[in-house]
Formats: sequence, C-alpha cells, structure tokens
Amino acid sequence: MTMTSTTTIPAAPALPARGEIRPLGQGEVRITGGFWGRRQQVNGSATLSHIEGRLESEGWLPNFDLAAAGKLPEGRRGREFSDSEIYKYLEGLAWEIGRTDDPALEERFRAVVARVAAAQEADGYLNTMFGREGQDPRWANLEWGHELYCLGHLFQAAVARERTRPGADDGLLEIARRAADLVCSVFGPDGIRSICGHAEVELGLAELARLTGEERYLAQAALFVERHGEGSLAEHEWGRSYYQDDMAVRDAEALRGHAVRANYLAAAAVDVAVDSGDDELLAALRRQWDRTVARRTYITGGQGSHHQDEAFGDDWELPPDRAYSETCASIGSIMFTWRLLLSDGDPRYADLIERSLYNVVETSPSADGTAFYYANTLHERVPGAPADPEATSLRASSSLRAPWFEVSCCPPNVARTFASLDAYVATATSDGVRLLQYAPAEVRTRLDDGTPVEFDVETSYPDNGLVRVVVRTDAEFTLGLRVPSWAQGATLRVQSADGVEERDAVPGIAEVRRAFSAGDVVELDLPVAPRISVPDSRIDAVRGCVAVERGPVVLAVESVDLADAGVDDVSRIVLDASVPPVERDGRVWVRIGVLPEDESAWPYGQATDAASPALFDVPLVAYHEWAERGPSTMRIFLPVM
Amino acid sequence: MTMTSTTTIPAAPALPARGEIRPLGQGEVRITGGFWGRRQQVNGSATLSHIEGRLESEGWLPNFDLAAAGKLPEGRRGREFSDSEIYKYLEGLAWEIGRTDDPALEERFRAVVARVAAAQEADGYLNTMFGREGQDPRWANLEWGHELYCLGHLFQAAVARERTRPGADDGLLEIARRAADLVCSVFGPDGIRSICGHAEVELGLAELARLTGEERYLAQAALFVERHGEGSLAEHEWGRSYYQDDMAVRDAEALRGHAVRANYLAAAAVDVAVDSGDDELLAALRRQWDRTVARRTYITGGQGSHHQDEAFGDDWELPPDRAYSETCASIGSIMFTWRLLLSDGDPRYADLIERSLYNVVETSPSADGTAFYYANTLHERVPGAPADPEATSLRASSSLRAPWFEVSCCPPNVARTFASLDAYVATATSDGVRLLQYAPAEVRTRLDDGTPVEFDVETSYPDNGLVRVVVRTDAEFTLGLRVPSWAQGATLRVQSADGVEERDAVPGIAEVRRAFSAGDVVELDLPVAPRISVPDSRIDAVRGCVAVERGPVVLAVESVDLADAGVDDVSRIVLDASVPPVERDGRVWVRIGVLPEDESAWPYGQATDAASPALFDVPLVAYHEWAERGPSTMRIFLPVM
Repeated sequence: MTMTSTTTIPAAPALPARGEIRPLGQGEVRITGGFWGRRQQVNGSATLSHIEGRLESEGWLPNFDLAAAGKLPEGRRGREFSDSEIYKYLEGLAWEIGRTDDPALEERFRAVVARVAAAQEADGYLNTMFGREGQDPRWANLEWGHELYCLGHLFQAAVARERTRPGADDGLLEIARRAADLVCSVFGPDGIRSICGHAEVELGLAELARLTGEERYLAQAALFVERHGEGSLAEHEWGRSYYQDDMAVRDAEALRGHAVRANYLAAAAVDVAVDSGDDELLAALRRQWDRTVARRTYITGGQGSHHQDEAFGDDWELPPDRAYSETCASIGSIMFTWRLLLSDGDPRYADLIERSLYNVVETSPSADGTAFYYANTLHERVPGAPADPEATSLRASSSLRAPWFEVSCCPPNVARTFASLDAYVATATSDGVRLLQYAPAEVRTRLDDGTPVEFDVETSYPDNGLVRVVVRTDAEFTLGLRVPSWAQGATLRVQSADGVEERDAVPGIAEVRRAFSAGDVVELDLPVAPRISVPDSRIDAVRGCVAVERGPVVLAVESVDLADAGVDDVSRIVLDASVPPVERDGRVWVRIGVLPEDESAWPYGQATDAASPALFDVPLVAYHEWAERGPSTMRIFLPVM
Repeated sequence: MTMTSTTTIPAAPALPARGEIRPLGQGEVRITGGFWGRRQQVNGSATLSHIEGRLESEGWLPNFDLAAAGKLPEGRRGREFSDSEIYKYLEGLAWEIGRTDDPALEERFRAVVARVAAAQEADGYLNTMFGREGQDPRWANLEWGHELYCLGHLFQAAVARERTRPGADDGLLEIARRAADLVCSVFGPDGIRSICGHAEVELGLAELARLTGEERYLAQAALFVERHGEGSLAEHEWGRSYYQDDMAVRDAEALRGHAVRANYLAAAAVDVAVDSGDDELLAALRRQWDRTVARRTYITGGQGSHHQDEAFGDDWELPPDRAYSETCASIGSIMFTWRLLLSDGDPRYADLIERSLYNVVETSPSADGTAFYYANTLHERVPGAPADPEATSLRASSSLRAPWFEVSCCPPNVARTFASLDAYVATATSDGVRLLQYAPAEVRTRLDDGTPVEFDVETSYPDNGLVRVVVRTDAEFTLGLRVPSWAQGATLRVQSADGVEERDAVPGIAEVRRAFSAGDVVELDLPVAPRISVPDSRIDAVRGCVAVERGPVVLAVESVDLADAGVDDVSRIVLDASVPPVERDGRVWVRIGVLPEDESAWPYGQATDAASPALFDVPLVAYHEWAERGPSTMRIFLPVM
C-alpha cells in the first residue's frame, strides 16, 4: 500500500490500492470546453462562491468560530450535519484549485481550513454540535447524530486537497489524520461496536488509507462496512434498511433504504473489497448494482422512489411523479459505479455515470449555477412556484430550483462533482488509455512502462455525436473509446499516414491498438438521432408510455412549449408514435395528440371510444434544462396514442 | 334548534338541525344479518373487547387513572392523541349498546366513563398529556398537541351515548359539556384565535349543539371552520395545506393535505353550513367533493396518495402501489359524504359511501376483527410479513393486518363505524323512506305526519343483487331504492294485490309511491355480474390497466391463487380482456397471460415483440378479503394484454 515517489499519483477522487485500472487524474486530463467545460466554468465562477456565501449567512461556517471561541452551544445554527457542507465545499474548492490554480480560491481555501482547525479539540474530535457542556454527548446518537458522516466528508476533503496539492501544508490533512486516529481508537475492534446512521466515514477512511498508507484506516473502514446488518442502530420507523443496518452488505440482493446512504455505503464497500481482496464482497456488490440498475433506477439514472424515507422502493416501483431521485443519490451512484468500473473496466458502468451526469447531476443546478433541485421528479403536474431567492427552502419542496435548503447536501455535492469531473473522463491500463466520457479535452499521461500517451479530444458532444481524437505524440498504445449501449450503428475511423480505416463500433469499448504518430486522428461517430425508449412492462407507473432520448440526454415535454397545441399542462397529451421524432432548428420535435377535456364524475367506468385527438408538432426540451423558463408542468414519459 | 318531545330523535351520528332529509336511526333500522350483520357481530363480539384490552395494556386508559391520582406526567404512555382512542372506543360502545342492549357492555361503558370523569379538571379541561407540572402547558402546541381533537371525539362519544340512551345519567354528557364550555371560553370570539392542527373538535361541537340546543357550540364550530386558512398554525414542512390552514375552506377547489384532517374538516363544515344556512359554503363543499371524487379518489373509495404526509396528491396522482388510503380517511370521507347526502339527497353520495364501506372500511379489519390495516394499498409487490400479535406495529408497516399500532386511530374508528352502521341504511323525508344501503334489515319508523312505515329487507347482497322489500303495515308512502351508478340494467318489481308491475330502474333513486298493504313486496334486481372498469386516461399510474368489479365490490388478483399459472407473484400477469370475467364455484374468474421472465440489464430500450404469453384461468378475490390466507402479493389493476 505504500506509495513510492516514482509512481504517478493521479489527482482523482478514488484510487484503488490494487487493480489494473487507474483513473487519469486532473493533471492528466483537462476538460477544455464544451458541455461540461461550460458547466465547470459556471461551477467555479458562480456555484462555489454562492455556496460559501450561504455557509456564512446561514451560520454553518461561523459555527466553527463559535466552537473555537468556546461559545457553543449558544448561537449554533443549522442541522446536526451542517459541518459536512463545509467539508464538501472544501473538497469542491480543492478540486477547483487543482483544475484552475486560482490564487483567490487558494486563499479562500486556507481561510476556511484555518477556521475548521481552530475548532478541533485536543484529542482530534471535531464537530460543532456535540460534546460540549449543554450539548448532547459525543457518539451518543449514532442513528441521527451524523458525527462520523461529517468526518467522512472531512477525510474526503483532505484527500482531494492532498491529491491536487500534495504537501500543501495548510493543515487539513493533519486535521483529518487526528480525527481519523480518534475514530479508530473509539470505534476500533475493542471500541464502540456500531456504525453511523449515514454511511460516509467508510469512504473517507478508505481513501485516507490509500493516501497515507495507514492500514488501520482501511481496517476501520472494513469494520464499519462489516458492522452494517448487526442491528447496532435502533429500530427505525421505516425499518433498519433505512440505514442499511438490516442485513450484512454482502447478503443484500439490491440497494435498499435511503438512497444516498445506500450508495455511499456500497461505494465504500467496493473500496474495502478491492483493497482487501475480498472477492466475495465485490461479487455481491456487482450483483447488487446489476439488480438496482435493472429494476430500481429511473431512465434519468435517478434513484430513490419514496419521498417519505428518501429511499429505494421495491423492484419496479418507479413512479415518475413521486420520484424522489435525490441529486445526492445520483452522486452517490456515480461514486459506487465508478469504483466498480475501476475494479473491472466494464463500460456499462460508464454508461450509467454518463446518464446520471447528464440527467440528474446536471438537472439539479440552474443554468447560472446558483439554484438547485434537491429531488428530481420525472413528471410535474402542478407548476412549481419560483423559489424565494432570500429564503432557505425545504428539500423536496414544490418550488422551482432553490438557492439553498435547510438540508443543503446537494449544492456542495454538485459542486465537488463538477470540479472533479476531469478525473472521470479516462482510465489507463498498462497498455493504453480508455476514453469513457466525451468532452473537448487534453489527455497527457504516461503508461506504467513510461510510454507517453498524449491526445486531444475535439467534440461538441452531446449536441453532435462525432468525437475526434487527435494524437499528439508518437507512441504505441491501445486507445479505447466507449460506445454507449444506446449507440447502435456507431462507426470508428482511423486516419493516419497509412490512410483511412473505417469500421463499425458496437456498444462496449472500441479499441485501436497501433503505433500512433502525432497527428493521427481517431474518429468515433456516435448516432445521437432522437430515439424512442420503451420501459420494461413491469414498471407499472409508466405502462403504455415511452420516453424520447437523444444520445445520453433524456428529453421531456414541458408545458411552456404547448401553447400552439392549445393546452397549458401536460395532462392531456399523447404521443403519436407513428411519426418518429425529428430534429429541426436545434430541437427535437414530436407529434402529439391532445385528448378532449372531458370530465366524468367518477373516473373508473366503461371504456369509451375516444375521439381522434387533434394533432400538433411540439418541441421537446432536454430534461436537464426544464423549468429554466419559469413555472411549468413537465413529463418525460409520454402516453402512446 | 330546540328539540321538542314530540319529535323523534334518531339514534344516528349526524342530525342536521335543518333540512328535509332525516336519517333513520338505530331504533328505526336494524340490520338483521347478511354481510354487514356478520361484520357487526364480529365487531361487537371481538373487535370492541380487543380494543379495550389494548387500551388497557398500552396504558392509554390507565393514563386517566394516573391523572386522577395526580401521578402524571410520570408513567404516562402513548402518543399525544391517545386519549382520543378511549373516546372513539366509548362512542363505539355507545352505538353497540344501542344496537344490542348488552348489559355487560353497559357495565364496561360506565366503568370507562367513570375513569375519564375522574381525570377531568375543575374547569372542564380534560387531557392526560398537557397542563400539569412537568407537562407542556395547555393549548401551547395547537399544531401537534391534538387537545381539541381529543375533545372533539369526547363530544362525539357523548352525543352517541345520549342519542342511543337519552338521559342515561352516566356523566358523559356532563363531562362533554364542561369541556365544551371551556373550549368556547378559551377559543371564543375574544379568545385564542387559532385552530387545532387536526380537525375534529368542529364535528363534535356541531353535534353537541344539535343535541343540547346550545347555540354557542355551533358558533364555536363555525369559528373554528372559518379560522382555517388564517395561517394561525406554524408553517409546516409540507405546507400549511397539511392541516388545511393554507386557505379558507370556502375557497378550496378540492380536498387537500392530510386526508383524515381534510375529510373531518369538510364534514364539520357541512354541519356548520347546513345549520347556519351558509349556502355559499355548502356549495363550495359540494364542488370540493365533486373534484375530489372525480380526480383524487381510488377505485376503492380510498383517499390519500402520499405516505410521507398521509395526504391527498395532486389531481390524477393515484399510485396504486404507494396508495396510502388510510382507513380513517375513508371513515372521514363517509362522514363528509353522508352529511352532503343529508343536505340534498343526491344518491351519488350513497354510492361513494357504499364503495368506501365495502372496499376500505371492510378491508381494514381481519375476518376475525382483531387485526387491521392502517393503510390500504391497491398493489402489493412484496408479500407482507405476519404481524407480531403481541407487538404494537407501525401504522403503515409492510406487515399483514396488525393487532395494534403506535398510532392506533383506525381500530376504534372502524369499530364505531360498524357499530353505528344501521344509521346509514335509510333516510326519511316527509313523504317516504329511501333505502340507501342494502342489508337484511327491519325498518320501523313514522313519517312527520305520523304515517307508519314498516318493512323488512331480505337480501344476500352483495353476493346476489336481489333486494326484496316486504311491507309490514298498510300505509301510503314513497319507497325509494338506490340504484347504484354501476347497476346498468336494474329492474324493479312491485307485487301487490293489484298484481305484478315491473319496470327498468336506472341509476339514481327508483321510487314507488302507493298505498302499500302489509305483504306487498318490492323487488329491486341489481345486476352484480362482474364487470371491467377502465380508469380515466389521466390517472397515469394505472394506464393500460383495468379493474374487475362485481356489484359494489372491487376484486383483485392475489398471488396465492396463481399457483396453477406457475407464478408466485403478480408482476408478470396480464389480463386477456377478450375473455369476459365469469362466475364459477362462487368466485369470479379471469383469463390471464403470464409474461416470460426476461431480464434486461437496463429496463428502458427498444420495444421487443413479446412472445404470446401462456394463458391461464385464475380466480379473483374480493379486495376486502385479500391477505387473509397468509402473505401474498396482490393487485387490483390488471395490465391489459
């Protein structure tokens, strides 16, 4: 596990200690523009400062100052997990600094770390909510206290910082180590035999072990993972499955319970399984992913079917209207999925990551990056009200995107994800590089044997399906390009001094191994023409409906586009599936029928011969762009006429 | 409003002070057997004693003893509304004593009343949870304290008692009056300008006004009704609509928010509107009922689409799998609907009451009357576990019917409804009697002018659709018989000395006015052959599905009946709608197809040509009988092949 100085340590969120596949970090991949480049720019210029502003004004960051001044519990503000938002913000800043080298951000980062450092107690304990006179004691409420959860995010922040600015000497890694040492001593083999109600510390500990080489951090992460299912947490109104304490991780068939907790735990369990060589656990997690993706995931990649417990439903229980599909659950799903990808390279994992990024993580923030969806419904029947820009909203309120929430996990989670997005673009093995997500980018790395792999990616994906890889140095390696599962009919073309070679590229990984010369071009042409997607017949809630997708982007009908059809909501529209969707003027158009507005006193009765509905051509909107034009109703799944 | 001694005062739950329509009370209608007679018998012999046992063992009744002994708050058990369960139990006992004249029940009733009486404070205040040293102060938490809610149930119990045993002198009416006087003085025009977070006190006050002639009880009920929408309650995580404090009652378009609260408030608002002659309010409530029934009600009559807030959803938001359909919401719906019926006699109201009784209120209790569903899903994907008979269950747990709940409003609510069921069977006007619900029964009453109306009802409805009315005394009056809206093709036959006269009876009220002679027979033949019901296309969650109904009874497929079809759950079955449902061996059979068990890694994709499924004939089960044969999966709405 010890890192030697000769090894390249990628600036990436997850770095398995074992395995053939290595993610390319920020220093090796740089997104230079395009869809994700624009989002990263907004994230850096608007979202991060918006978040810091709210962390200050809501009092969550000042809580640390009060702690340092001995003025707690008086004046403490925010929920029991508010400390974690500061750590997620720090993590986001760390990635952003790694990406942009912005001195102003560096200054902000150090200033926040200093305030956090001042609040840490002598024995390493760090939490503004517990342990002081007048507060509840430490570790007394593992179900709901979120103390370990907060520390997990602290550890992830420290890891991000150290991977992007090794040896930065700002104190954050030391803060994390002292806290992690305390966790190991309090919750170790001879300590409190329990877990945190919200998984997260496991992830942080596993990465901190990878970073520091400290074996007992991994051992502690493994202990926490294994303790799930021992029932050490109190019974819960919705069952111990809520916090995954109902059965051993390795015994589960699918993710269940609270969807963020479930994904964070599964991600950590992959870390533990890979680094400790626990193949049985890893196989169990792969099975759980398979079942969860096949039966418990929305077409957007979203997860979580219940508002009540923010939880997965049963298999096939995927209501579009009451979809919870929490932004953070998809971020957790990306973490889990990415770790599985690093364990065996299966490109299906990258398919889900792409889907979740375009259709959940990108849906949450507004175009200007300062308002967010916490939950991401797939069907809005009543237009949401504009959110009060000054207020703090409820997490799953019926408003449009809101600037902040009482439980505000999503905004900083979105920010850290976008800031680290470069690290999800490509992986390396001993013989080459795989390009997994498509964006204009520069890739500059070396294989284990020192072979330099350097290329640029030119693309306006997903608007256009053409991905052009321009090799920048002479080298023999295998270039792998992911062909998404929806991309039937893709083609691959290699242009070199030898001429042009073209072939079909079936979904999976299209590989080109050759002695590349600088200037060689590999072009992957992915068909992004709009297509109709039919849900499995067991997803009862969308029976008789289809969705329209274009490339990786899920489309929707939004009522603001229905004026010409003479309706002001989406309740009476049906799709004329005999007319394929077409592209015109940069939008996808479908033909819809509008059902007559008949009203019966009782809505269950004899079938009536429906009159032929009036037909209209209407444009669809990318789901991630919905509700950007004011209050509207919306649906992804369209009833077929 | 003053009752004169010459007026018959029916022993019925709701007695409008104004209006042409009078319910026939317990003394005038007696259910003598059949479907509801059997349920009433179980209710009297098993359910009521089961409830009292739990009220004792859970400590909820002993709380009153502790209060009387000055030993509170130590030892108090149960939630803040547990007092109300004792009052609902007393109400149930009162109706049952009225129905059966059982001296043992009379003794139990008086014993419980004595314990309640001992806990009342000098100024009339009565609640075991508030106001003592060490407890929260009185009226300080109107949002959640349920103090007024509890008193509303106390008032209803006192009214039931006085209407069934006038002048019983057990003290209950005096307890209620003292408490009501206190409520009027604390919350009157010059008092606290607020409401209870859970409507109910309005209902109790309105009925207490009718019983006692005390005008200010009605005025106080009206004040509480009118104060809804003033925003006197605190903001709520799910909006003030949760407790109907978001807008004035008369301004709403449909019932909204918590479904029990919404129905209780609407019922009380009808009482207030009728007794105070507020026609505008009454018209608003009729509109709300129309919209709620047309767009927010399940085929079972159930209401409430959300688990999270036990609330109505938006229009058309009626997921069968996540249906909450709380038993108490349907009891509230019956109270609201019954009051509207008494206001104008529209038989559609009786249709909904019948539907709710057969398909929700009857679904809740087990056949033996000692276990209950709190929520009534229309689609169970994963078999529920048997409930622990010793334990207290969570209200919407995934278990089968459970003996008791931490929030146990439903069992006593079911008990008081069944015990008072006779009073929902028929109404009288100045010129005759209408029979609204069908059960073997004796009807013995007098019209306002003294005309004796006496007849027996003979029927095995709903098994058989023939309802036979045998007149027992000579008199001229109008006999009205409700023809449910589903009963297309009903016929009416009058057999008398004049011969036999037969005619078609269209849905609504079939009337026969004549000078009846004892021995005359009126037969209504309602076609109860199984029929297919198609949901409105806007109910997205059941698109492409139909339900099978038989008479007033909604049917379901239950997995325990699918062994011959080779499947152990209901996820892969489709209905062959080309084969009409048939009756055989006392059950309704349908032909279903079983879809192949194919599994795709991603459940949204290209349409595949489905293989023709294997076909099987399977029997349906009455929804109210489901899960009586052990754990199973179930669905009411069947996808059409």
